[in-house]
Amino acid sequence: MKKVAIVGVGHSKFGVRKDASLRELAFESVRESLSDANLSLSEIDATITGVCISELAKEVNPSFPVAEYIGINPKPDMRVASACATGSAAIRTAWMGISSGLYDVVLVIGAEKMTESPTPIVTEVMGRGGDVQWEYSYGTTFPGYYAMMANRHMHEFGTTREQLAMVAVKNHKNALDNPYAQFRKEINVEKVINSPMVSYPLTLFDCCPLTDGAAAVILASEVRAKKITDTQIWLTGLGTATDSHTLSNRETLVGLPASKIAFKQASKMANVTHQDIDVVEVHDCFTIAEIMAYEDLGFCRKGEGGRLIAEGITEIGGELPVNPDGGLKAKGHPVGATGVSQAVEITKQLRGEAGNRQVEGAEIGLSHNVGSSGQSVFVHIYRR
Amino acid sequence: MKKVAIVGVGHSKFGVRKDASLRELAFESVRESLSDANLSLSEIDATITGVCISELAKEVNPSFPVAEYIGINPKPDMRVASACATGSAAIRTAWMGISSGLYDVVLVIGAEKMTESPTPIVTEVMGRGGDVQWEYSYGTTFPGYYAMMANRHMHEFGTTREQLAMVAVKNHKNALDNPYAQFRKEINVEKVINSPMVSYPLTLFDCCPLTDGAAAVILASEVRAKKITDTQIWLTGLGTATDSHTLSNRETLVGLPASKIAFKQASKMANVTHQDIDVVEVHDCFTIAEIMAYEDLGFCRKGEGGRLIAEGITEIGGELPVNPDGGLKAKGHPVGATGVSQAVEITKQLRGEAGNRQVEGAEIGLSHNVGSSGQSVFVHIYRR
Repeated sequence: MKKVAIVGVGHSKFGVRKDASLRELAFESVRESLSDANLSLSEIDATITGVCISELAKEVNPSFPVAEYIGINPKPDMRVASACATGSAAIRTAWMGISSGLYDVVLVIGAEKMTESPTPIVTEVMGRGGDVQWEYSYGTTFPGYYAMMANRHMHEFGTTREQLAMVAVKNHKNALDNPYAQFRKEINVEKVINSPMVSYPLTLFDCCPLTDGAAAVILASEVRAKKITDTQIWLTGLGTATDSHTLSNRETLVGLPASKIAFKQASKMANVTHQDIDVVEVHDCFTIAEIMAYEDLGFCRKGEGGRLIAEGITEIGGELPVNPDGGLKAKGHPVGATGVSQAVEITKQLRGEAGNRQVEGAEIGLSHNVGSSGQSVFVHIYRR
Repeated sequence: MKKVAIVGVGHSKFGVRKDASLRELAFESVRESLSDANLSLSEIDATITGVCISELAKEVNPSFPVAEYIGINPKPDMRVASACATGSAAIRTAWMGISSGLYDVVLVIGAEKMTESPTPIVTEVMGRGGDVQWEYSYGTTFPGYYAMMANRHMHEFGTTREQLAMVAVKNHKNALDNPYAQFRKEINVEKVINSPMVSYPLTLFDCCPLTDGAAAVILASEVRAKKITDTQIWLTGLGTATDSHTLSNRETLVGLPASKIAFKQASKMANVTHQDIDVVEVHDCFTIAEIMAYEDLGFCRKGEGGRLIAEGITEIGGELPVNPDGGLKAKGHPVGATGVSQAVEITKQLRGEAGNRQVEGAEIGLSHNVGSSGQSVFVHIYRR
C-alpha cells in the first residue's frame, strides 16, 4: 500500500458561530489548511467532505454548497458520513483515493452547523443517531444511550461519579490552551456534579456541547508530500469496525467492542504497540465515553479507566496524554468536523506546534472517533 | 492502479414497496448479489452504503441499520453520498478501497425508501437538492431546474416537445423486459404530452417517479475476482467532476459540463473511444436529461440529442442502446440505489444475461450518474 501523509491542517474557531454559515465555516478551515501547506487550490485533486446531519444543514447534499463556495468545482468531490465518526471516515476515504493512485493530493473537510436549529430539534435529530425502528421510538435520547453505559460501568466496576467528572475537568483545563476551543474556562468536580441533570448519572458538564465548526486536512502521496513539506505526518495505521445499531443487541454495555477491533487493525498496520503511542485523541462525547475508550483501546484493563483519570495518567504531562486540545467535551463537537479536528490536533502535536498544550517529544499519535453510540469506530495512527 | 472487477450483482424490485423497509430492501439486493457471486457474507471485507436522503430514511446515518440487518457487523461500513449520484460515488469509493490494497472484496449497497413520506414532503426535500441559500428559497422545485434546461435547449437547438416525449416512450418500452422495473407498460408520445403539467414543458411522463428500491454489487481485487467467477466484469474507467451548486453560476443551461469532464477522465483511464462503447446507462431523471447526456458524453454534437432519439439510434437494436433497463424514467429512481442499479444492468448486459433486453454482443459499457442537477457527475466504464 502506498504511503500517505498529512501535509496541511486548518481549523475554524469552534463554538456558537452565528457569524458564519456551514460553507463559510468550511472555508475558514480550508483557507488555513492551504496556507499551512503553502498550496493553492489548483494543486488539490479532489475534496472529500464530511457533513453528518443534512437535516441541520438544510441541504440534501451539504458538500455541494461547500464545494462551490471554496471554489473546488469542477474537480471531484464526494460526501462521506458515519454519524459522529464522519470526519474520520472522510480521511479514510481520502487515504484510499491516494493510496490507490487515483489522486495525489486530497483536501478533506469536516463541517457541521448545529446551533442554528432550535435545541429541541437538534436533540430529536441526535436521538435518531440511535436505531429509529426499535429504540429511539421508545424515547431514548443520545445522552440516554451513554447514560445506560455509565450506570452499568459504575455498577460493574465501581467507577465513581467523581471519576466521570474528572474527565470533564481535565478536558476543560486542556482547552484553556486551545484558541479554537468552544469552552475556555476551568471547572471543578463539584461544578460538574452539581450541574443540571441530563440523563442520570450524566449532568450537563458530562456532555459535550452542540457546536458549529469545521476542520480541514490535506493528504498527499509520498512523492508529492516530500515536495510540499519537510514535516510530513504519515498516516501509517487505519482501523475501523462496526457494531449493531440497536444497543439491545450488543454483547456489552460497558464498552464499545468496535473500538477494540479498530485499534487492533490500526496498530497492526502501523506496527506499533501501546507503549509506542505518545499522544491520543479519543471520542469523549460524554465523560463515560473517554473512560471506556481508555479501556477499549487497551491502554488499561476493562474497568480500570476510572483509575487512569483519577491518577492523572491522561493529563498533559502524564504517561498517556489524552485529548490535549480539550476533546469533544471542551473544544466542542461539530459532528462532521470532529474526526478531522482530531487529525489536526495530532498533526500539530507531532510537529511540535501545539504551544502550551504540547506533549513533549511526541512522535506517534492516535485518534479514536466513534459513530453514534459505537455503531462505527475509526482509529488512525500517525507518525512524525 | 490495481484492477477491480464486479463479481456479483443483486437488485430489489423497484416501485412502491409498502411491504419492505429500507433495511429490508437493502437485504433483498444483498442476498441476490451474494448468491450471484456464490459468496457468503463472511467472505466480504467491508460494505460501502449509499443512501442519499437521511430525512426520508428517518435515520441520521442510514447505513447503520442496514449494516446490522444484513449482518455485516463488526466489519467496516461507511456511508457515501453525492445526491442522486450516491450509488456511483459508493462504487468509486469501493474501487479505491480495493485498488489501494485495504480490501479484497467489498459489497456496495445503494438503497432508498421514498414513497413512505407524504409526496409534498418528498417534493420539498428533493427541491433542497438545489442550493437552499440562493435558489430553492425562491421556490424552485427539482423538476423546475430541469424544466429551465429543457426550455433553453428547445430555444437554442429547436429540440421538440415530441423528441422529449420519445425518451419516455423508449424507456417505458425497454422496461417491459425488466422484471425489476417500477413501470412496465407501454406509453406513446401523445400520452406523455397530454399527461398533467409538472413544470413547463415537462409533464408527468417526462419525470422519473418516486421509488423504493435497492441494488448491490460486489467488487473484488484481480486475484480474488478470478477465484470467485469466470465472468468478471472489469471496472476499467472512472471519472467524476463537479459543478456549481447554484444553477445561476453555471456557464450553460443546455448541458451538464461535469458530464463532459467525467467522460473524458473515464475514457482516458479505460483507453476507449465512443466507437468502442456498446451499451450505455444515462441519468434520465427527466427526458431532457437523457438528451443532454447524449451530447455531454460526446455521442453527438451539442444540440443534436433530439435527433438521436428521433432516429431510433438509442433504442435496443440501434447503434447506441441507451437505458435498456428502462432508465430512471421507467425502472424507477430510488436515488441512493440508482448508480448501483446502473452497474447491475451494465454487468448483466456484458455477461449476456439481460434476457429480452440484451444488447447483442456487448463488450464495453458505460454508466452516467448525475448528482442533483449536475452538481456532481460520475461516469464508469466496464469491460467484459
